[in-house]
Amino acid sequence: MKKIAAIGAGNIGIMAAKALELSPDMELCGFIRREIRPVHGFENIPVAKSVFDLPEKPDGAMICLPSRLAETAEAELLENGIFTADVFDIHEELIGMREHLSESAEKGKVSAVIGAGWDPGLDSAIRALMSAALPQGTTFTDFGPGMSMGHSAAVRAVEGVADAVSFTLPLGYGRHRRKIYAVLEENADKYAVEHEILSDGYFEHDECPIEFLPSVKELFSTGHCAKINRFGNACGIGGNRLSFKISGDNPALTGQLLVLAMRAAFLQKPGAYFVPEIPPRDFCAGDDWMKFI
Amino acid sequence: MKKIAAIGAGNIGIMAAKALELSPDMELCGFIRREIRPVHGFENIPVAKSVFDLPEKPDGAMICLPSRLAETAEAELLENGIFTADVFDIHEELIGMREHLSESAEKGKVSAVIGAGWDPGLDSAIRALMSAALPQGTTFTDFGPGMSMGHSAAVRAVEGVADAVSFTLPLGYGRHRRKIYAVLEENADKYAVEHEILSDGYFEHDECPIEFLPSVKELFSTGHCAKINRFGNACGIGGNRLSFKISGDNPALTGQLLVLAMRAAFLQKPGAYFVPEIPPRDFCAGDDWMKFI
Repeated sequence: MKKIAAIGAGNIGIMAAKALELSPDMELCGFIRREIRPVHGFENIPVAKSVFDLPEKPDGAMICLPSRLAETAEAELLENGIFTADVFDIHEELIGMREHLSESAEKGKVSAVIGAGWDPGLDSAIRALMSAALPQGTTFTDFGPGMSMGHSAAVRAVEGVADAVSFTLPLGYGRHRRKIYAVLEENADKYAVEHEILSDGYFEHDECPIEFLPSVKELFSTGHCAKINRFGNACGIGGNRLSFKISGDNPALTGQLLVLAMRAAFLQKPGAYFVPEIPPRDFCAGDDWMKFI
Repeated sequence: MKKIAAIGAGNIGIMAAKALELSPDMELCGFIRREIRPVHGFENIPVAKSVFDLPEKPDGAMICLPSRLAETAEAELLENGIFTADVFDIHEELIGMREHLSESAEKGKVSAVIGAGWDPGLDSAIRALMSAALPQGTTFTDFGPGMSMGHSAAVRAVEGVADAVSFTLPLGYGRHRRKIYAVLEENADKYAVEHEILSDGYFEHDECPIEFLPSVKELFSTGHCAKINRFGNACGIGGNRLSFKISGDNPALTGQLLVLAMRAAFLQKPGAYFVPEIPPRDFCAGDDWMKFI
Protein backbone atom coordinates (compact mmCIF):
# COMPACT_ATOMS: atom_id res chain seq x y z
CA MET A 1 0.00 0.00 0.00
CA LYS A 2 1.66 3.19 -1.20
CA LYS A 3 1.49 6.18 1.16
CA ILE A 4 0.46 9.40 -0.58
CA ALA A 5 0.47 13.04 0.54
CA ALA A 6 -1.85 15.67 -0.95
CA ILE A 7 0.04 18.93 -1.52
CA GLY A 8 -2.81 21.39 -1.06
CA ALA A 9 -6.24 20.94 0.49
CA GLY A 10 -8.46 22.88 -1.91
CA ASN A 11 -11.08 21.42 -4.25
CA ILE A 12 -8.68 19.06 -5.99
CA GLY A 13 -6.82 18.03 -2.84
CA ILE A 14 -10.04 17.02 -1.11
CA MET A 15 -11.41 15.24 -4.17
CA ALA A 16 -8.16 13.35 -4.72
CA ALA A 17 -8.22 12.37 -1.01
CA LYS A 18 -11.73 10.94 -1.52
CA ALA A 19 -10.54 8.96 -4.55
CA LEU A 20 -7.62 7.57 -2.52
CA GLU A 21 -10.08 6.33 0.13
CA LEU A 22 -11.76 4.25 -2.60
CA SER A 23 -8.47 3.08 -4.11
CA PRO A 24 -7.21 -0.42 -3.21
CA ASP A 25 -3.50 0.26 -3.70
CA MET A 26 -2.80 3.71 -2.20
CA GLU A 27 -3.67 5.52 1.02
CA LEU A 28 -3.53 9.13 2.15
CA CYS A 29 -0.83 9.80 4.75
CA GLY A 30 -1.07 13.60 5.02
CA PHE A 31 -2.19 16.98 3.73
CA ILE A 32 0.32 19.77 3.15
CA ARG A 33 -1.16 23.26 3.59
CA ARG A 34 -0.03 26.72 4.69
CA GLU A 35 -1.93 26.63 8.00
CA ILE A 36 -1.71 23.58 10.20
CA ARG A 37 -5.39 22.83 10.83
CA PRO A 38 -7.35 19.67 10.12
CA VAL A 39 -9.08 19.22 6.74
CA HIS A 40 -12.87 18.96 6.98
CA GLY A 41 -13.93 15.33 6.48
CA PHE A 42 -10.36 14.10 6.98
CA GLU A 43 -9.83 15.00 10.64
CA ASN A 44 -7.72 11.86 11.26
CA ILE A 45 -5.21 12.71 8.53
CA PRO A 46 -1.98 14.48 9.62
CA VAL A 47 -1.51 18.05 8.36
CA ALA A 48 1.90 19.75 7.98
CA LYS A 49 3.54 22.65 6.17
CA SER A 50 6.04 20.32 4.45
CA VAL A 51 6.09 16.62 3.57
CA PHE A 52 9.26 16.35 5.62
CA ASP A 53 7.27 17.28 8.77
CA LEU A 54 4.73 14.45 8.30
CA PRO A 55 4.90 11.50 10.76
CA GLU A 56 6.08 9.27 7.90
CA LYS A 57 7.75 10.14 4.61
CA PRO A 58 5.24 9.58 1.78
CA ASP A 59 6.05 7.36 -1.23
CA GLY A 60 4.23 9.76 -3.50
CA ALA A 61 2.77 13.27 -3.54
CA MET A 62 -0.17 14.59 -5.55
CA ILE A 63 0.25 18.25 -6.49
CA CYS A 64 -3.11 19.90 -5.70
CA LEU A 65 -1.93 23.51 -6.06
CA PRO A 66 -2.80 26.17 -8.64
CA SER A 67 -0.84 25.34 -11.81
CA ARG A 68 1.61 28.18 -11.35
CA LEU A 69 2.76 26.94 -7.96
CA ALA A 70 3.13 23.32 -9.11
CA GLU A 71 6.53 23.13 -10.77
CA THR A 72 8.75 24.42 -7.95
CA ALA A 73 6.99 22.32 -5.32
CA GLU A 74 7.15 19.26 -7.54
CA ALA A 75 10.85 19.61 -8.37
CA GLU A 76 11.76 19.65 -4.66
CA LEU A 77 9.69 16.54 -3.94
CA LEU A 78 11.20 14.62 -6.86
CA GLU A 79 14.75 15.54 -5.89
CA ASN A 80 13.99 14.15 -2.45
CA GLY A 81 12.94 10.77 -3.81
CA ILE A 82 9.15 11.25 -3.73
CA PHE A 83 7.11 10.20 -6.79
CA THR A 84 4.71 12.90 -7.99
CA ALA A 85 1.70 13.59 -10.20
CA ASP A 86 0.11 16.89 -11.20
CA VAL A 87 -2.77 18.30 -13.21
CA PHE A 88 -0.80 21.29 -14.51
CA ASP A 89 -2.89 22.78 -17.33
CA ILE A 90 -0.92 25.47 -19.19
CA HIS A 91 -0.31 23.74 -22.54
CA GLU A 92 2.42 26.13 -23.72
CA GLU A 93 4.64 25.42 -20.72
CA LEU A 94 4.36 21.64 -20.66
CA ILE A 95 7.42 20.76 -22.75
CA GLY A 96 9.73 22.97 -20.70
CA MET A 97 8.24 21.67 -17.48
CA ARG A 98 8.82 18.06 -18.51
CA GLU A 99 12.46 18.81 -19.27
CA HIS A 100 12.99 20.47 -15.89
CA LEU A 101 11.11 17.85 -13.88
CA SER A 102 12.81 14.97 -15.74
CA GLU A 103 16.12 16.22 -14.35
CA SER A 104 14.69 16.45 -10.84
CA ALA A 105 13.15 12.99 -11.17
CA GLU A 106 16.36 11.41 -12.35
CA LYS A 107 18.24 13.07 -9.50
CA GLY A 108 15.78 11.56 -6.98
CA LYS A 109 15.49 8.24 -8.91
CA VAL A 110 11.70 8.59 -9.04
CA SER A 111 9.05 9.51 -11.62
CA ALA A 112 6.45 12.17 -12.25
CA VAL A 113 3.31 12.02 -14.39
CA ILE A 114 2.58 15.61 -15.36
CA GLY A 115 -0.21 17.51 -17.06
CA ALA A 116 -2.45 14.60 -16.13
CA GLY A 117 -5.94 16.12 -15.70
CA TRP A 118 -8.70 16.33 -18.34
CA ASP A 119 -6.80 18.42 -20.85
CA PRO A 120 -3.86 18.13 -21.02
CA GLY A 121 -4.11 14.58 -19.69
CA LEU A 122 -6.81 12.08 -20.57
CA ASP A 123 -7.71 14.11 -23.68
CA SER A 124 -4.05 14.09 -24.77
CA ALA A 125 -3.97 10.26 -24.71
CA ILE A 126 -7.22 10.14 -26.70
CA ARG A 127 -5.90 12.64 -29.26
CA ALA A 128 -2.65 10.63 -29.63
CA LEU A 129 -4.60 7.41 -30.27
CA MET A 130 -6.89 9.23 -32.71
CA SER A 131 -4.03 10.80 -34.63
CA ALA A 132 -2.33 7.40 -34.90
CA ALA A 133 -5.52 5.67 -36.10
CA LEU A 134 -6.21 8.34 -38.75
CA PRO A 135 -2.71 9.57 -39.65
CA GLN A 136 -4.06 12.01 -42.27
CA GLY A 137 -6.78 14.12 -40.69
CA THR A 138 -7.89 16.98 -38.50
CA THR A 139 -8.59 17.05 -34.76
CA PHE A 140 -10.90 19.52 -33.04
CA THR A 141 -11.28 19.83 -29.26
CA ASP A 142 -14.25 21.72 -27.86
CA PHE A 143 -14.58 22.55 -24.18
CA GLY A 144 -17.68 23.34 -22.19
CA PRO A 145 -20.11 24.78 -21.58
CA GLY A 146 -18.77 24.74 -18.05
CA MET A 147 -16.76 26.53 -15.39
CA SER A 148 -13.00 26.23 -15.87
CA MET A 149 -11.23 25.68 -12.56
CA GLY A 150 -7.84 26.81 -13.86
CA HIS A 151 -9.23 29.96 -15.47
CA SER A 152 -11.38 30.80 -12.43
CA ALA A 153 -8.36 30.44 -10.15
CA ALA A 154 -6.30 32.64 -12.48
CA VAL A 155 -8.89 35.44 -12.22
CA ARG A 156 -9.16 35.06 -8.44
CA ALA A 157 -5.36 35.45 -8.24
CA VAL A 158 -5.54 38.95 -9.81
CA GLU A 159 -5.03 41.80 -7.34
CA GLY A 160 -8.30 43.58 -6.65
CA VAL A 161 -10.48 40.51 -7.35
CA ALA A 162 -12.43 39.23 -4.33
CA ASP A 163 -14.09 36.29 -6.10
CA ALA A 164 -14.58 35.10 -9.68
CA VAL A 165 -15.77 32.34 -11.96
CA SER A 166 -14.76 31.86 -15.59
CA PHE A 167 -16.96 29.89 -17.97
CA THR A 168 -15.73 28.25 -21.17
CA LEU A 169 -18.31 28.37 -23.95
CA PRO A 170 -17.71 26.31 -27.11
CA LEU A 171 -18.21 28.03 -30.48
CA GLY A 172 -17.57 24.72 -32.26
CA TYR A 173 -14.57 23.06 -33.97
CA GLY A 174 -11.93 24.30 -31.56
CA ARG A 175 -13.06 27.90 -31.05
CA HIS A 176 -14.21 29.18 -27.67
CA ARG A 177 -15.50 32.22 -25.93
CA ARG A 178 -14.83 32.80 -22.22
CA LYS A 179 -17.19 34.61 -19.89
CA ILE A 180 -15.79 35.93 -16.62
CA TYR A 181 -17.95 36.99 -13.68
CA ALA A 182 -15.89 38.77 -11.02
CA VAL A 183 -16.42 40.50 -7.68
CA LEU A 184 -14.16 43.51 -7.12
CA GLU A 185 -12.53 44.18 -3.78
CA GLU A 186 -13.45 47.48 -2.18
CA ASN A 187 -11.40 50.34 -3.72
CA ALA A 188 -10.10 48.09 -6.54
CA ASP A 189 -9.36 49.76 -9.89
CA LYS A 190 -11.78 48.10 -12.31
CA TYR A 191 -9.80 49.00 -15.42
CA ALA A 192 -6.49 47.79 -13.98
CA VAL A 193 -8.18 44.51 -13.00
CA GLU A 194 -9.66 44.09 -16.50
CA HIS A 195 -6.30 44.80 -18.08
CA GLU A 196 -4.47 42.32 -15.88
CA ILE A 197 -7.00 39.56 -16.51
CA LEU A 198 -7.00 40.02 -20.29
CA SER A 199 -3.21 40.10 -20.62
CA ASP A 200 -2.92 36.73 -18.84
CA GLY A 201 -1.83 33.81 -21.06
CA TYR A 202 -4.92 31.92 -19.88
CA PHE A 203 -7.17 34.45 -21.64
CA GLU A 204 -5.23 36.20 -24.39
CA HIS A 205 -6.29 33.71 -27.12
CA ASP A 206 -10.07 34.05 -26.76
CA GLU A 207 -12.88 36.58 -26.75
CA CYS A 208 -13.37 37.19 -23.09
CA PRO A 209 -16.07 39.56 -21.78
CA ILE A 210 -15.91 40.40 -18.06
CA GLU A 211 -18.96 41.24 -15.97
CA PHE A 212 -18.56 42.62 -12.45
CA LEU A 213 -21.18 41.46 -9.97
CA PRO A 214 -21.71 41.90 -6.21
CA SER A 215 -21.51 38.09 -5.78
CA VAL A 216 -20.74 35.06 -7.96
CA LYS A 217 -21.70 32.38 -5.42
CA GLU A 218 -24.95 31.56 -7.23
CA LEU A 219 -23.09 31.08 -10.53
CA PHE A 220 -20.69 28.55 -9.08
CA SER A 221 -21.31 25.09 -10.60
CA THR A 222 -18.72 22.43 -11.15
CA GLY A 223 -19.97 20.55 -14.22
CA HIS A 224 -17.83 20.59 -17.34
CA CYS A 225 -17.63 18.92 -20.72
CA ALA A 226 -15.12 18.25 -23.51
CA LYS A 227 -15.52 16.81 -27.00
CA ILE A 228 -12.77 15.65 -29.32
CA ASN A 229 -13.46 14.95 -32.99
CA ARG A 230 -11.06 13.65 -35.60
CA PHE A 231 -11.95 13.16 -39.26
CA GLY A 232 -9.47 11.57 -41.60
CA ASN A 233 -7.96 8.89 -43.78
CA ALA A 234 -6.92 5.38 -42.77
CA CYS A 235 -4.76 3.58 -45.36
CA GLY A 236 -5.36 6.65 -47.55
CA ILE A 237 -9.15 6.07 -47.51
CA GLY A 238 -11.52 8.74 -46.18
CA GLY A 239 -14.89 8.74 -44.45
CA ASN A 240 -13.56 7.76 -41.04
CA ARG A 241 -14.62 9.57 -37.87
CA LEU A 242 -13.53 9.27 -34.25
CA SER A 243 -15.19 11.12 -31.42
CA PHE A 244 -14.72 11.21 -27.66
CA LYS A 245 -16.86 12.99 -25.11
CA ILE A 246 -16.32 13.48 -21.41
CA SER A 247 -18.81 15.22 -19.14
CA GLY A 248 -19.23 15.34 -15.40
CA ASP A 249 -18.06 17.03 -12.24
CA ASN A 250 -14.81 18.85 -13.00
CA PRO A 251 -13.13 18.66 -9.54
CA ALA A 252 -14.18 15.00 -9.12
CA LEU A 253 -12.88 13.95 -12.53
CA THR A 254 -9.70 15.98 -12.12
CA GLY A 255 -9.09 14.57 -8.62
CA GLN A 256 -9.66 11.04 -9.90
CA LEU A 257 -7.34 11.53 -12.87
CA LEU A 258 -4.68 12.87 -10.52
CA VAL A 259 -4.92 9.69 -8.43
CA LEU A 260 -4.55 7.54 -11.58
CA ALA A 261 -1.47 9.54 -12.57
CA MET A 262 -0.04 8.99 -9.09
CA ARG A 263 -0.59 5.23 -9.45
CA ALA A 264 1.07 5.20 -12.87
CA ALA A 265 4.06 7.26 -11.69
CA PHE A 266 5.23 4.34 -9.51
CA LEU A 267 5.41 2.07 -12.58
CA GLN A 268 7.63 4.25 -14.77
CA LYS A 269 11.41 4.41 -15.04
CA PRO A 270 12.90 7.61 -13.53
CA GLY A 271 11.76 10.68 -15.47
CA ALA A 272 8.77 12.95 -16.09
CA TYR A 273 6.00 11.71 -18.38
CA PHE A 274 2.91 12.97 -20.16
CA VAL A 275 -0.22 10.81 -20.17
CA PRO A 276 0.23 9.63 -23.82
CA GLU A 277 3.59 8.16 -22.77
CA ILE A 278 1.99 5.80 -20.25
CA PRO A 279 0.35 2.44 -21.07
CA PRO A 280 -3.40 2.75 -20.25
CA ARG A 281 -3.12 -0.35 -18.03
CA ASP A 282 -0.77 1.51 -15.68
CA PHE A 283 -3.64 3.84 -14.70
CA CYS A 284 -5.83 0.91 -13.65
CA ALA A 285 -5.85 -0.75 -10.23
CA GLY A 286 -4.55 -4.33 -10.42
CA ASP A 287 -5.70 -6.40 -13.39
CA ASP A 288 -9.04 -4.57 -13.79
CA TRP A 289 -8.09 -3.54 -17.31
CA MET A 290 -8.03 -7.22 -18.38
CA LYS A 291 -11.83 -7.31 -18.07
CA PHE A 292 -12.03 -4.64 -20.74
CA ILE A 293 -9.86 -6.16 -23.48
CA MET B 1 13.37 2.20 -42.23
CA LYS B 2 11.93 -1.09 -40.94
CA LYS B 3 11.19 -3.73 -43.56
CA ILE B 4 7.78 -5.34 -43.15
CA ALA B 5 6.15 -8.40 -44.74
CA ALA B 6 2.38 -8.82 -45.07
CA ILE B 7 1.38 -12.39 -44.22
CA GLY B 8 -1.70 -12.72 -46.46
CA ALA B 9 -2.87 -10.59 -49.36
CA GLY B 10 -6.61 -10.38 -48.73
CA ASN B 11 -8.56 -7.25 -47.74
CA ILE B 12 -6.45 -6.53 -44.68
CA GLY B 13 -3.12 -7.38 -46.27
CA ILE B 14 -3.74 -4.98 -49.15
CA MET B 15 -5.05 -2.22 -46.89
CA ALA B 16 -2.10 -2.58 -44.51
CA ALA B 17 0.24 -2.42 -47.52
CA LYS B 18 -1.40 0.88 -48.57
CA ALA B 19 -0.94 2.25 -45.04
CA LEU B 20 2.75 1.26 -45.11
CA GLU B 21 3.19 3.22 -48.38
CA LEU B 22 2.03 6.33 -46.47
CA SER B 23 4.11 5.56 -43.39
CA PRO B 24 7.42 7.41 -42.93
CA ASP B 25 9.14 4.75 -40.81
CA MET B 26 8.30 1.36 -42.36
CA GLU B 27 8.21 -0.13 -45.86
CA LEU B 28 6.70 -3.24 -47.39
CA CYS B 29 9.30 -5.85 -48.42
CA GLY B 30 7.02 -8.73 -49.43
CA PHE B 31 3.66 -10.49 -49.45
CA ILE B 32 3.33 -14.06 -48.23
CA ARG B 33 0.53 -16.00 -49.93
CA ARG B 34 -0.29 -19.57 -50.94
CA GLU B 35 0.16 -18.97 -54.65
CA ILE B 36 3.18 -17.10 -55.92
CA ARG B 37 1.57 -14.43 -58.13
CA PRO B 38 1.85 -10.65 -57.90
CA VAL B 39 -0.62 -8.68 -55.77
CA HIS B 40 -2.77 -6.25 -57.78
CA GLY B 41 -1.55 -2.71 -57.24
CA PHE B 42 1.73 -3.95 -55.72
CA GLU B 43 3.31 -5.62 -58.76
CA ASN B 44 6.83 -4.52 -57.72
CA ILE B 45 6.61 -6.20 -54.28
CA PRO B 46 8.15 -9.70 -53.95
CA VAL B 47 5.71 -12.56 -53.26
CA ALA B 48 6.70 -15.83 -51.59
CA LYS B 49 5.16 -18.77 -49.74
CA SER B 50 7.29 -18.12 -46.65
CA VAL B 51 9.10 -15.10 -45.23
CA PHE B 52 12.28 -17.14 -45.38
CA ASP B 53 11.98 -17.24 -49.19
CA LEU B 54 11.83 -13.43 -49.55
CA PRO B 55 14.89 -11.66 -51.05
CA GLU B 56 15.58 -10.09 -47.64
CA LYS B 57 14.52 -11.18 -44.15
CA PRO B 58 11.87 -8.74 -42.86
CA ASP B 59 12.24 -6.95 -39.51
CA GLY B 60 8.54 -7.35 -38.88
CA ALA B 61 5.51 -9.22 -40.16
CA MET B 62 1.86 -8.14 -40.12
CA ILE B 63 -0.50 -11.10 -39.75
CA CYS B 64 -3.25 -10.54 -42.35
CA LEU B 65 -4.81 -14.00 -42.10
CA PRO B 66 -8.20 -15.11 -40.78
CA SER B 67 -7.99 -15.06 -36.96
CA ARG B 68 -7.89 -18.84 -36.67
CA LEU B 69 -4.78 -19.15 -38.79
CA ALA B 70 -2.94 -16.33 -36.99
CA GLU B 71 -1.46 -17.91 -33.87
CA THR B 72 0.55 -20.74 -35.44
CA ALA B 73 1.96 -18.52 -38.18
CA GLU B 74 2.80 -15.80 -35.65
CA ALA B 75 4.55 -18.13 -33.21
CA GLU B 76 6.91 -19.36 -35.94
CA LEU B 77 7.80 -15.83 -37.03
CA LEU B 78 8.47 -14.70 -33.46
CA GLU B 79 10.68 -17.71 -32.71
CA ASN B 80 12.70 -16.77 -35.78
CA GLY B 81 13.37 -13.25 -34.54
CA ILE B 82 10.70 -11.40 -36.55
CA PHE B 83 8.52 -8.80 -34.74
CA THR B 84 4.80 -9.29 -35.36
CA ALA B 85 1.40 -7.65 -35.06
CA ASP B 86 -2.07 -9.12 -35.56
CA VAL B 87 -5.74 -8.14 -35.48
CA PHE B 88 -6.90 -11.44 -33.93
CA ASP B 89 -10.48 -10.86 -32.80
CA ILE B 90 -11.71 -13.81 -30.72
CA HIS B 91 -11.92 -12.21 -27.26
CA GLU B 92 -12.17 -15.49 -25.33
CA GLU B 93 -8.88 -16.80 -26.70
CA LEU B 94 -6.77 -13.67 -26.21
CA ILE B 95 -5.32 -14.42 -22.79
CA GLY B 96 -4.16 -17.91 -23.80
CA MET B 97 -2.77 -16.56 -27.04
CA ARG B 98 -0.75 -13.90 -25.25
CA GLU B 99 0.76 -16.52 -22.96
CA HIS B 100 1.76 -18.74 -25.88
CA LEU B 101 3.10 -15.91 -28.06
CA SER B 102 4.99 -14.35 -25.15
CA GLU B 103 7.03 -17.53 -24.92
CA SER B 104 7.68 -17.50 -28.68
CA ALA B 105 8.59 -13.81 -28.54
CA GLU B 106 11.03 -14.28 -25.68
CA LYS B 107 12.61 -17.20 -27.49
CA GLY B 108 13.16 -15.00 -30.57
CA LYS B 109 14.03 -11.87 -28.48
CA VAL B 110 11.32 -9.88 -30.28
CA SER B 111 7.84 -8.56 -29.54
CA ALA B 112 4.28 -8.98 -30.74
CA VAL B 113 1.32 -6.62 -30.42
CA ILE B 114 -1.74 -8.83 -30.56
CA GLY B 115 -5.50 -8.36 -30.80
CA ALA B 116 -4.75 -4.92 -32.18
CA GLY B 117 -7.68 -4.13 -34.53
CA TRP B 118 -10.84 -2.18 -33.64
CA ASP B 119 -12.10 -4.48 -30.94
CA PRO B 120 -10.12 -5.97 -29.31
CA GLY B 121 -7.53 -3.29 -29.95
CA LEU B 122 -8.20 0.44 -30.07
CA ASP B 123 -11.50 -0.06 -28.22
CA SER B 124 -9.67 -2.02 -25.49
CA ALA B 125 -7.32 0.90 -24.81
CA ILE B 126 -10.29 3.29 -24.68
CA ARG B 127 -12.18 1.01 -22.29
CA ALA B 128 -9.09 0.70 -20.03
CA LEU B 129 -8.73 4.51 -19.87
CA MET B 130 -12.47 4.87 -19.22
CA SER B 131 -12.51 2.27 -16.46
CA ALA B 132 -9.54 3.97 -14.81
CA ALA B 133 -11.14 7.44 -15.01
CA LEU B 134 -14.46 6.23 -13.57
CA PRO B 135 -13.38 3.35 -11.31
CA GLN B 136 -16.97 2.71 -10.14
CA GLY B 137 -19.19 2.39 -13.19
CA THR B 138 -20.52 0.41 -16.11
CA THR B 139 -19.20 0.12 -19.66
CA PHE B 140 -21.31 -0.76 -22.70
CA THR B 141 -19.91 -1.43 -26.16
CA ASP B 142 -22.24 -1.40 -29.14
CA PHE B 143 -21.16 -2.52 -32.60
CA GLY B 144 -22.66 -1.67 -35.93
CA PRO B 145 -24.75 -1.47 -37.91
CA GLY B 146 -22.15 -2.86 -40.26
CA MET B 147 -20.64 -5.95 -41.84
CA SER B 148 -18.29 -7.85 -39.55
CA MET B 149 -15.21 -9.04 -41.43
CA GLY B 150 -14.34 -11.70 -38.86
CA HIS B 151 -17.88 -13.08 -38.71
CA SER B 152 -18.28 -13.02 -42.49
CA ALA B 153 -15.02 -14.92 -42.90
CA ALA B 154 -16.13 -17.45 -40.27
CA VAL B 155 -19.33 -18.17 -42.24
CA ARG B 156 -17.43 -18.40 -45.52
CA ALA B 157 -15.13 -20.98 -43.91
CA VAL B 158 -18.06 -23.35 -43.23
CA GLU B 159 -18.22 -26.34 -45.58
CA GLY B 160 -21.05 -25.95 -48.09
CA VAL B 161 -20.99 -22.12 -48.04
CA ALA B 162 -20.02 -20.52 -51.36
CA ASP B 163 -20.19 -16.89 -50.17
CA ALA B 164 -21.56 -15.03 -47.15
CA VAL B 165 -21.78 -11.73 -45.30
CA SER B 166 -22.62 -11.29 -41.62
CA PHE B 167 -24.02 -8.00 -40.32
CA THR B 168 -23.81 -6.87 -36.71
CA LEU B 169 -26.89 -4.92 -35.61
CA PRO B 170 -26.82 -3.09 -32.26
CA LEU B 171 -29.80 -3.55 -29.93
CA GLY B 172 -28.27 -1.01 -27.51
CA TYR B 173 -26.22 -1.19 -24.30
CA GLY B 174 -24.08 -4.14 -25.28
CA ARG B 175 -26.70 -6.40 -26.89
CA HIS B 176 -26.55 -7.32 -30.56
CA ARG B 177 -28.32 -9.25 -33.20
CA ARG B 178 -26.45 -10.77 -36.15
CA LYS B 179 -27.88 -11.23 -39.60
CA ILE B 180 -26.19 -13.68 -41.94
CA TYR B 181 -26.77 -13.81 -45.67
CA ALA B 182 -25.21 -16.90 -47.25
CA VAL B 183 -24.96 -18.55 -50.65
CA LEU B 184 -25.00 -22.37 -50.54
CA GLU B 185 -22.71 -24.45 -52.70
CA GLU B 186 -24.48 -26.81 -55.07
CA ASN B 187 -25.59 -30.00 -53.23
CA ALA B 188 -24.80 -28.48 -49.81
CA ASP B 189 -26.95 -29.63 -46.87
CA LYS B 190 -28.71 -26.44 -45.71
CA TYR B 191 -29.48 -27.77 -42.22
CA ALA B 192 -25.94 -29.02 -41.65
CA VAL B 193 -24.62 -25.61 -42.76
CA GLU B 194 -27.01 -23.78 -40.41
CA HIS B 195 -26.03 -26.02 -37.53
CA GLU B 196 -22.32 -25.56 -38.11
CA ILE B 197 -22.63 -21.76 -38.33
CA LEU B 198 -24.74 -21.44 -35.19
CA SER B 199 -22.51 -23.69 -33.06
CA ASP B 200 -19.48 -21.51 -33.87
CA GLY B 201 -18.11 -19.45 -30.95
CA TYR B 202 -18.41 -16.37 -33.17
CA PHE B 203 -22.22 -16.70 -33.18
CA GLU B 204 -23.33 -18.74 -30.18
CA HIS B 205 -23.87 -15.66 -27.93
CA ASP B 206 -26.32 -13.77 -30.15
CA GLU B 207 -29.61 -14.11 -31.96
CA CYS B 208 -28.51 -14.95 -35.44
CA PRO B 209 -31.02 -15.46 -38.27
CA ILE B 210 -29.60 -16.88 -41.51
CA GLU B 211 -31.04 -16.14 -44.93
CA PHE B 212 -29.90 -18.10 -47.98
CA LEU B 213 -29.69 -16.10 -51.21
CA PRO B 214 -28.45 -16.81 -54.74
CA SER B 215 -25.87 -14.00 -54.36
CA VAL B 216 -24.65 -11.67 -51.60
CA LYS B 217 -22.44 -9.46 -53.80
CA GLU B 218 -24.92 -6.56 -53.70
CA LEU B 219 -25.04 -6.68 -49.87
CA PHE B 220 -21.29 -6.34 -49.51
CA SER B 221 -20.38 -2.98 -47.93
CA THR B 222 -17.41 -2.30 -45.74
CA GLY B 223 -18.57 0.48 -43.40
CA HIS B 224 -18.74 -0.26 -39.69
CA CYS B 225 -19.28 1.54 -36.42
CA ALA B 226 -18.63 1.07 -32.67
CA LYS B 227 -19.72 3.05 -29.64
CA ILE B 228 -18.39 2.74 -26.11
CA ASN B 229 -20.21 4.34 -23.20
CA ARG B 230 -19.17 4.41 -19.56
CA PHE B 231 -21.25 5.96 -16.76
CA GLY B 232 -19.85 6.14 -13.27
CA ASN B 233 -18.34 7.71 -10.21
CA ALA B 234 -15.11 9.68 -9.95
CA CYS B 235 -13.92 10.26 -6.36
CA GLY B 236 -17.20 8.61 -5.32
CA ILE B 237 -19.25 11.30 -7.11
CA GLY B 238 -21.71 10.39 -9.86
CA GLY B 239 -23.02 12.08 -12.99
CA ASN B 240 -19.93 11.46 -15.09
CA ARG B 241 -20.13 10.12 -18.64
CA LEU B 242 -17.50 9.06 -21.14
CA SER B 243 -18.28 8.10 -24.70
CA PHE B 244 -16.21 7.09 -27.70
CA LYS B 245 -17.38 6.50 -31.23
CA ILE B 246 -15.54 5.15 -34.23
CA SER B 247 -17.05 4.86 -37.68
CA GLY B 248 -15.58 4.35 -41.12
CA ASP B 249 -14.30 1.77 -43.54
CA ASN B 250 -13.67 -1.46 -41.64
CA PRO B 251 -10.80 -2.93 -43.73
CA ALA B 252 -9.10 0.50 -43.97
CA LEU B 253 -9.30 1.15 -40.23
CA THR B 254 -8.26 -2.40 -39.39
CA GLY B 255 -5.34 -2.29 -41.83
CA GLN B 256 -4.23 1.06 -40.40
CA LEU B 257 -4.46 -0.17 -36.81
CA LEU B 258 -2.41 -3.24 -37.76
CA VAL B 259 0.34 -0.97 -39.11
CA LEU B 260 0.32 1.05 -35.86
CA ALA B 261 0.62 -2.15 -33.86
CA MET B 262 3.56 -3.21 -36.05
CA ARG B 263 5.25 0.14 -35.34
CA ALA B 264 4.68 -0.22 -31.60
CA ALA B 265 5.95 -3.81 -31.51
CA PHE B 266 9.49 -2.61 -32.29
CA LEU B 267 9.47 -0.39 -29.19
CA GLN B 268 8.52 -3.03 -26.60
CA LYS B 269 10.69 -5.35 -24.56
CA PRO B 270 10.49 -9.02 -25.69
CA GLY B 271 6.99 -10.41 -25.14
CA ALA B 272 3.43 -10.29 -26.46
CA TYR B 273 1.28 -7.26 -25.62
CA PHE B 274 -2.32 -6.11 -25.83
CA VAL B 275 -3.03 -2.55 -26.98
CA PRO B 276 -3.82 -1.24 -23.43
CA GLU B 277 -0.28 -2.28 -22.42
CA ILE B 278 1.33 0.08 -24.95
CA PRO B 279 1.86 3.84 -24.46
CA PRO B 280 -0.32 5.68 -27.03
CA ARG B 281 2.77 7.55 -28.24
CA ASP B 282 4.33 4.28 -29.44
CA PHE B 283 1.59 3.99 -32.10
CA CYS B 284 2.44 7.40 -33.55
CA ALA B 285 5.07 8.11 -36.19
CA GLY B 286 7.94 10.20 -34.76
CA ASP B 287 6.97 13.01 -32.41
CA ASP B 288 3.56 13.64 -34.02
CA TRP B 289 1.83 12.89 -30.70
CA MET B 290 3.55 15.93 -29.13
CA LYS B 291 1.32 18.20 -31.23
CA PHE B 292 -1.69 16.71 -29.52
CA ILE B 293 -0.74 17.10 -25.85
